[in-house]
Amino acid sequence: MSEAAQTLDGWYCLHDFRSMDWSAWKQVSSDERQAAIHEFLGLMEKWQKTEKEKQGSQALYTIVGQKADFMMMFVRPTMEELNEIETEFNKTKLAEYTIPTYSYVSVVELSNYLPAGQDPYENPEIRARLYPILPKAKHICFYPMDKRRQGNDNWYMLPMEERRSLMRSHGMIGRQYAGKVKQIITGSVGFDDYEWGVTLFAEDVLQFKKLVYEMRFDEVSARYGEFGTFFVGNILNQDRIAQFLYV
Amino acid sequence: MSEAAQTLDGWYCLHDFRSMDWSAWKQVSSDERQAAIHEFLGLMEKWQKTEKEKQGSQALYTIVGQKADFMMMFVRPTMEELNEIETEFNKTKLAEYTIPTYSYVSVVELSNYLPAGQDPYENPEIRARLYPILPKAKHICFYPMDKRRQGNDNWYMLPMEERRSLMRSHGMIGRQYAGKVKQIITGSVGFDDYEWGVTLFAEDVLQFKKLVYEMRFDEVSARYGEFGTFFVGNILNQDRIAQFLYV
Amino acid sequence: MSEAAQTLDGWYCLHDFRSMDWSAWKQVSSDERQAAIHEFLGLMEKWQKTEKEKQGSQALYTIVGQKADFMMMFVRPTMEELNEIETEFNKTKLAEYTIPTYSYVSVVELSNYLPAGQDPYENPEIRARLYPILPKAKHICFYPMDKRRQGNDNWYMLPMEERRSLMRSHGMIGRQYAGKVKQIITGSVGFDDYEWGVTLFAEDVLQFKKLVYEMRFDEVSARYGEFGTFFVGNILNQDRIAQFLYV
Amino acid sequence: MSEAAQTLDGWYCLHDFRSMDWSAWKQVSSDERQAAIHEFLGLMEKWQKTEKEKQGSQALYTIVGQKADFMMMFVRPTMEELNEIETEFNKTKLAEYTIPTYSYVSVVELSNYLPAGQDPYENPEIRARLYPILPKAKHICFYPMDKRRQGNDNWYMLPMEERRSLMRSHGMIGRQYAGKVKQIITGSVGFDDYEWGVTLFAEDVLQFKKLVYEMRFDEVSARYGEFGTFFVGNILNQDRIAQFLYV
Amino acid sequence: MSEAAQTLDGWYCLHDFRSMDWSAWKQVSSDERQAAIHEFLGLMEKWQKTEKEKQGSQALYTIVGQKADFMMMFVRPTMEELNEIETEFNKTKLAEYTIPTYSYVSVVELSNYLPAGQDPYENPEIRARLYPILPKAKHICFYPMDKRRQGNDNWYMLPMEERRSLMRSHGMIGRQYAGKVKQIITGSVGFDDYEWGVTLFAEDVLQFKKLVYEMRFDEVSARYGEFGTFFVGNILNQDRIAQFLYV
Repeated sequence: MSEAAQTLDGWYCLHDFRSMDWSAWKQVSSDERQAAIHEFLGLMEKWQKTEKEKQGSQALYTIVGQKADFMMMFVRPTMEELNEIETEFNKTKLAEYTIPTYSYVSVVELSNYLPAGQDPYENPEIRARLYPILPKAKHICFYPMDKRRQGNDNWYMLPMEERRSLMRSHGMIGRQYAGKVKQIITGSVGFDDYEWGVTLFAEDVLQFKKLVYEMRFDEVSARYGEFGTFFVGNILNQDRIAQFLYV
Repeated sequence: MSEAAQTLDGWYCLHDFRSMDWSAWKQVSSDERQAAIHEFLGLMEKWQKTEKEKQGSQALYTIVGQKADFMMMFVRPTMEELNEIETEFNKTKLAEYTIPTYSYVSVVELSNYLPAGQDPYENPEIRARLYPILPKAKHICFYPMDKRRQGNDNWYMLPMEERRSLMRSHGMIGRQYAGKVKQIITGSVGFDDYEWGVTLFAEDVLQFKKLVYEMRFDEVSARYGEFGTFFVGNILNQDRIAQFLYV
Repeated sequence: MSEAAQTLDGWYCLHDFRSMDWSAWKQVSSDERQAAIHEFLGLMEKWQKTEKEKQGSQALYTIVGQKADFMMMFVRPTMEELNEIETEFNKTKLAEYTIPTYSYVSVVELSNYLPAGQDPYENPEIRARLYPILPKAKHICFYPMDKRRQGNDNWYMLPMEERRSLMRSHGMIGRQYAGKVKQIITGSVGFDDYEWGVTLFAEDVLQFKKLVYEMRFDEVSARYGEFGTFFVGNILNQDRIAQFLYV
Repeated sequence: MSEAAQTLDGWYCLHDFRSMDWSAWKQVSSDERQAAIHEFLGLMEKWQKTEKEKQGSQALYTIVGQKADFMMMFVRPTMEELNEIETEFNKTKLAEYTIPTYSYVSVVELSNYLPAGQDPYENPEIRARLYPILPKAKHICFYPMDKRRQGNDNWYMLPMEERRSLMRSHGMIGRQYAGKVKQIITGSVGFDDYEWGVTLFAEDVLQFKKLVYEMRFDEVSARYGEFGTFFVGNILNQDRIAQFLYV
Repeated sequence: MSEAAQTLDGWYCLHDFRSMDWSAWKQVSSDERQAAIHEFLGLMEKWQKTEKEKQGSQALYTIVGQKADFMMMFVRPTMEELNEIETEFNKTKLAEYTIPTYSYVSVVELSNYLPAGQDPYENPEIRARLYPILPKAKHICFYPMDKRRQGNDNWYMLPMEERRSLMRSHGMIGRQYAGKVKQIITGSVGFDDYEWGVTLFAEDVLQFKKLVYEMRFDEVSARYGEFGTFFVGNILNQDRIAQFLYV
């Protein structure tokens, strides 16, 4: 039997980080800027319609620090839709004033611990997690990660039982943050450079630090976690967009 | 006797990843854009003629995320032909609006497990794999990889018998995906920065994740695999090209 | 019980490093340059008002070498305020002539060694350190760092008692530099790529080297420290700004 | 006695990799392009005169993939001459349309295994290898490399006798490729980021892969080799230059 | 007692590497170019006056290969002076045609092996090394380096006596090159990304390779040395400047 844990896979996911080219944006005439904003809001409306129809969801956040000025996160039923969304955005007027800084391609993923005999894809609670409507929390945190394969710290050489037990105690930490931090795990093996993407949502930004720090002492992270770059941001509500883009 | 396994080598292979400079592309007059597209379609026709004559093959996919907007994959009998193809493309009008983001140079490679006495290059089944007509599958996945040489995890210090046995069980996983994922292995020792390129084709993009994830628990990957960057994409049929480039 | 040490968290912190585009800056008319400087000084006044009202603090230093021409460091009660400050700066005229080179997002952090039963957030000495008015010292030094998780040198696998004892002797070195080097530790787990940022202030720049070098022989750094890039700089007083920007 | 093997050092060596800025090159008037090509051919004539006078040698190859469009390799008696050549090229019209992508600085190097009492620099066979006229082979391969110093795999901590014996069996593999692959080793300790540069020439490009792959199983490479980036290319004869630059 | 060796610290040091933007430089009118060169020579005169007054020193070299076209090295009594020099240079006309490629910030450093009771800063021989007038040798070599802290190869965990003994035999190699290679060690802990910068000067460029290669077999380098990027160059005398900048 394969040592790989079964996963449940939901909507495909694209994180798209951008910086603004503020100098160029300022040089555009006010009319053109308005048209660009209008066009972007039109796109957003279309995306929100998709969300209302439960055919996907998205989130828009400004990012703190120079890694990006803002990020868009999309979940959709197919890889093709993600591709169309980014291409459509890339062709907008606003996109001419943005600089791509990072992106991540993955798929919403759950570990399958359900008793056999049930079709998890018919379970409404699981469906809600596989095809999530993204929270409108005040803050977002994103980072990609790997399970380490290094000398004696090789996750993929551990017996499944040991991995399962380690993950269980790891999950306990996460559960202590229930109600404070909402976590969406997306799998990216075969899709992008790390094995998972972790997206956290919270009303209190400090909870990201508390959660990730506490987890770092857990053996799964301490011995087996390899982390990529971290992004932290604040929600960019529709009414904050005009202000954000005002120059 | 040399510890290096014998390989069979077929057509040379170039993966060429590009982003579009959409801002510049939009500023071109509609006529010039049409001319650029026309010129590119002309090139494609030439390439397809080569494919029809079984003198090579190619694939064209859009890429999801910011790593590239599209990729072209070419297999040809000589390194010179690959060089000419990229130079010819670089001189086109369309190329002026593309930004090179990644490339990979390799040669189609098969491990030679045939009984002695046969010339494998005369075996039609093997010829079909060494000189492949690339599938027109809906999705592509590409990543380069090395066999690890690190402390106790040194592939190249293992006895050939052990490598052969490890590879055999590794290959079993691949075979479970027969019909779902088509895999083309290209060797790049001496040609590019990793030792192999792996190109996967599938109708269902999720099969890439399932296959690569399952393999990661196999000792060959778990202890000995070092992976480069991953690209995933959707087929860019001739009729989707106009739409993709429409601005 | 969790193995993670309790931390006290104060104001959020942004380090923002920039280079000047001197060629472009020189091409601007003298009037426009004056207007840009005037606008920037206006921003600074606003920031200083915040500092006077104890709602935050900031520091401005030129950086030696090509990594940056200057850096701004901000501490503020919320992540949103940091985001607004950087966006406001990015929209200024001066910002058009700067090139972002590095940034760091974190939160002022103290380890909590107080006896139980006290609310440390009510302790005035601790408050002064959690919500610090940044020193106006002649020199600054900044670097991010991690605690190592590598083979036998894995900080996060040590029992808390051992970590506590190691940190105690580590702190002793720091205390020898009291009066010479002022140190602000900011935590960035979940916020940026390293786990901590270290900002040092001194009147004698050589004390940075002495302190960091001496600490490197301490087991906490020698076995468990992983260091990012180092920046060193000289204070950019308001009266030096005009001279710095004069071309 | 020093543990460092004696080396014989010949001509200094510069590898210079460039991409073409095809968009800019196409925008130049045909006359200017002709003048630029003419100026470059003039430089080449000067270099070939140097080669005829046995005062140096050079090679010109196009490179496959996006790492570079072409490379120039120079060997000369002094470091100053290499510096002058690159500066002279940088000042040409053609250079305005090239983008430097990689370079390597080294010196032709032979291990000295000759019996004592002889002056190897008087040995004509050795002189021919220290002051080589570069082959005009159809293909080139270049990569820089280090000997590993990592944990138990530390080349520089091995006794000289062991290194010598390992190198001997390593050299045996090379010798099997005599007539198929010509190899020029250049030393770059103190000159560039790796310890050696390896330049291979062959009529059959596949021999690069066969040679480097076979060597990888040899203990010297398997345990002690660290490899930089690989370039592979096709000869750019004088008569192919016009065609290569034709737009 | 601290395990950190005492160091003597002299003048602060800035290495500044630049490439020329030859295309832009050629487009400038001959008059402007002359003015730019004149302005730069004026700066140099000022620097040479400082050197004559023993208040600092500098060196100017062209660099071989694409890492830089030239480098300037400055030693001065304060970090502020280094900052002023780079800012002053950055504001010159010539600087508009240069592209910063690398820099290094450090301080001239000597290990203190003098018997107690003496003030080494009063010792004229030591003063000459702490406040050096840089040699006008034909060649320069620069590289930054760390002492390794990795598994069993952790320099900072060695007892001081062992470090002292290892450094003594290491120094013996350097002494064999007395008269051939002049070496200036600068410390950069707390100032830049590596712990030390090594600047070598020689009349015969091959001596750099011989020295660094021989040292690599010494345990201090073999087990404990981590090296950054290497630069090698040729002296750019005042009379060669005009020729170097002539286009």
